[in-house]
Amino acid sequence: MADEAPFQFLHNEVLQYIYKSAENGETDNGRNIAKLENMGFRVGQGLMERLTKDTARFKDELDIMKFVCKDFWTCVFKKQIDNLRTNHQGIYVLQDNKFRLLSQLSAGKQYLEQAPKYLAFTCGLVRGALSNLGVKSIVTAEVSVMPACVSDHKMIRKIFS
Amino acid sequence: MADEAPFQFLHNEVLQYIYKSAENGETDNGRNIAKLENMGFRVGQGLMERLTKDTARFKDELDIMKFVCKDFWTCVFKKQIDNLRTNHQGIYVLQDNKFRLLSQLSAGKQYLEQAPKYLAFTCGLVRGALSNLGVKSIVTAEVSVMPACVSDHKMIRKIFS
Repeated sequence: MADEAPFQFLHNEVLQYIYKSAENGETDNGRNIAKLENMGFRVGQGLMERLTKDTARFKDELDIMKFVCKDFWTCVFKKQIDNLRTNHQGIYVLQDNKFRLLSQLSAGKQYLEQAPKYLAFTCGLVRGALSNLGVKSIVTAEVSVMPACVSDHKMIRKIFS
Repeated sequence: MADEAPFQFLHNEVLQYIYKSAENGETDNGRNIAKLENMGFRVGQGLMERLTKDTARFKDELDIMKFVCKDFWTCVFKKQIDNLRTNHQGIYVLQDNKFRLLSQLSAGKQYLEQAPKYLAFTCGLVRGALSNLGVKSIVTAEVSVMPACVSDHKMIRKIFS
């Protein structure tokens, strides 16, 4: 029940720290997002390095994405991705119906505009994980509804096939 | 095996971020330590709040310390404290022989002076956890040897009995 809690709490503190130090300084929202994304990138790289230590070589890109959806996601968020879709041309959509870093936010639409800063770290996380396996990617996130069950869409586009 | 890894990696990134942003700015080492300690404090508070949600009321201080050594430590570091000693007058020494946040550092004495910054967050973590249960404390940490098996001593002194 509380297995993922230390990570969640620390993530929230990092968020607050970065936004608070920005208030006193010069940085704008975009730069804070970039900082969080970079932080996620390096965490993702390191994590993937450790997780794939003893796994067999991946067959193809889809195989890599499945690993991200299952093992990688479970390691960080203690649950799997709920839905993986692809157009088989390098675009993947990962859907998490109960995204842990958002599940503490209130339901409804009033905090929807706050969502991007809660997603930046995770975008970087996925990008870093893929980068560690030699897949360059662009990762974006979307939240359409934020009910008790949160929906989190991730669009992953490869830019270099 | 990799259960505690996301937390560890994130902790390392936070450390690097705080120290790197300090290089460009005005802050000194003591202030960075304080920032980490404060971050740990709030994480500890939140975690303890969640962990004690369904537990019975604690009998006494020793009971609280045992909970910190077992449940709390396991939640964050996936292992228990190895040794708890007390003088029954408000001083507790917690010993972790393989402290996770140090176990990635090289053995030997050459990085011993780097240790405090890896311990600051955890000191705050314990202080925050105790504070959430109404125990005001001073938490300090010591590292005497840093071999493959890392020894981490924590001296917890209550200031208000």
